[in-house]
Amino acid sequence: MPELRRDPIVGRWVIIATERARKPSDFATPPAPPAAGLCPFCPGQEDKTPREVYVSGRPPALAANGPGWKVRVVPNRFPALRVEGDLDRKAEGIYDVMNGVGAHEVVIETPDHARQVKDLSDAELTEVLFAFKARVLDLRNDLRLRYVLLFKNQGAAAGASLEHPHSQLIALPVTPRQVQDEIDGARRHFEHRERCIFCDIVAQERKDRARLIYENEEFVVFAPWAPRSPFETWIVPKRHESNYEAEPKERLGQCAQALGSTLRRLAAALGDPPFNFIVHSNPLRDLPTPSYHWHIEVMPALTQVAGFEWGSGFHINPVPPEEAAEFLRKMAV
Amino acid sequence: MPELRRDPIVGRWVIIATERARKPSDFATPPAPPAAGLCPFCPGQEDKTPREVYVSGRPPALAANGPGWKVRVVPNRFPALRVEGDLDRKAEGIYDVMNGVGAHEVVIETPDHARQVKDLSDAELTEVLFAFKARVLDLRNDLRLRYVLLFKNQGAAAGASLEHPHSQLIALPVTPRQVQDEIDGARRHFEHRERCIFCDIVAQERKDRARLIYENEEFVVFAPWAPRSPFETWIVPKRHESNYEAEPKERLGQCAQALGSTLRRLAAALGDPPFNFIVHSNPLRDLPTPSYHWHIEVMPALTQVAGFEWGSGFHINPVPPEEAAEFLRKMAV
Repeated sequence: MPELRRDPIVGRWVIIATERARKPSDFATPPAPPAAGLCPFCPGQEDKTPREVYVSGRPPALAANGPGWKVRVVPNRFPALRVEGDLDRKAEGIYDVMNGVGAHEVVIETPDHARQVKDLSDAELTEVLFAFKARVLDLRNDLRLRYVLLFKNQGAAAGASLEHPHSQLIALPVTPRQVQDEIDGARRHFEHRERCIFCDIVAQERKDRARLIYENEEFVVFAPWAPRSPFETWIVPKRHESNYEAEPKERLGQCAQALGSTLRRLAAALGDPPFNFIVHSNPLRDLPTPSYHWHIEVMPALTQVAGFEWGSGFHINPVPPEEAAEFLRKMAV
Repeated sequence: MPELRRDPIVGRWVIIATERARKPSDFATPPAPPAAGLCPFCPGQEDKTPREVYVSGRPPALAANGPGWKVRVVPNRFPALRVEGDLDRKAEGIYDVMNGVGAHEVVIETPDHARQVKDLSDAELTEVLFAFKARVLDLRNDLRLRYVLLFKNQGAAAGASLEHPHSQLIALPVTPRQVQDEIDGARRHFEHRERCIFCDIVAQERKDRARLIYENEEFVVFAPWAPRSPFETWIVPKRHESNYEAEPKERLGQCAQALGSTLRRLAAALGDPPFNFIVHSNPLRDLPTPSYHWHIEVMPALTQVAGFEWGSGFHINPVPPEEAAEFLRKMAV
């Protein structure tokens, strides 16, 4: 059973993921990639993954856990957390630990191994974003869970271990400290000014235009004022909404268009860089709020997290966001 | 002039390092390593760096900024921050910015390009740790500075761009949020129990022994309870002391022995992994305190920071610290 351990000084939680355990000696040699032709996410290989928890696009005449799907969500075969069991919070001397209860799922974005998420049509990417929503709505029924983190790692340098286009979700029995910091920061702004800070940021970015990259009817794409990495890009809904899962499918379609455009711009500008994207949304057990505003953060993996970042939480970014935005605005996509 | 920009939501500062600026298009191709034989940190190449701010081991008969040194500290040629100028704090709409005033220095650990820090003798490594102390004591006189972060990046995957053994220091006009979180967490423990949490941790680790790796007269080396990365290792003085720069040279000698032993164990166990180490110490303007305790954190760079970590601040670690410690204890060094 994996464990959630709390650092006694700063309160940071760490998942000790025994199901993904590697022997200490394994770190001396890098892991071998899976052999070609054996991709567990390809159609026809459905029995190589745990049974699907969500599927879209498969005609009703075809059997579950077989081909014919467009988006397929399955539990991770080597999950960081497990759905079964009680939290069983306890102390070990001065330390805190609980069972690693939660969910870890893989969203297979397309049956086509050779495509990338940026190459999906707006309609296809909308199905992926809708699958995210459907999974959050389902996992919300499990009262042990407090937060669902939706994210994608693309490229080995960004932490992806399989090539087939996929994103992931991890549902946690605690709200991560960093998520809570964002929510608390937004709440302080709201208490002071009675306005959502993200709505204020959207207004300033649309007015300044120096960091603006793209906008459509419902979403605005910009380089944030204080980006942690070169070309960090945020995708924010113009209309206030705290919860990702509250968005109707039409607005997810607009989000897909903005996200696809962003990923194509980054790919064209930077030569298909490895990247992460993360959906930031309100925790499962919190009421919808006027002070928090869901959004997506895209982080190209162009610089290393090194000693300075580990020690300070500061980041050093050699590219001003105004230059990054200007460069990305000019890309034809 | 570099800028320090504050994220308006969570208060995280970012250095927009214009002196290290790379054109957006440069990211499409990785930077070329410096040509062989042109290492600016080698003896005889002293004119390739800014003028030294500290040196040890050079006989008095030899000229400054020439060969004959054992440890040499110079300003970084492409500094993230600059020593000249005023902070000039100001608002830009809803955003906060100040000039990137600070110091960014390189501690060249040995004249010998081909050695690694782990291969230094205890006496040589003591000279490096003493240079850290001397620089902190000097920079403390600049009242604009609030914190000095001492750290090392070794290996490209850990953020090092030059091979010649060196560590770095960055002096900042603000106390980093993450440092403050650690100090605040330790203070809360002290207020509650009137004991230093690090002293409590040292006592529990020496009693449990499951995560203990090494100890000498003055320092204890262990895998922390909630490590962010496989084989994360902490080196903590047994005697309470909040400020690194307050340590006498004899105790820095004991620290050098513990640090050298740790780096040799990690190298033997993991096949010379890239790593970072970071000195955690009390801020320059804070009085010595019974609640905080300086220490060194060593982080092998074995796993990527990916979407989950970016989004949550949580870390997933596939190696329990008890297994890592057992493995490192057994290494003959």
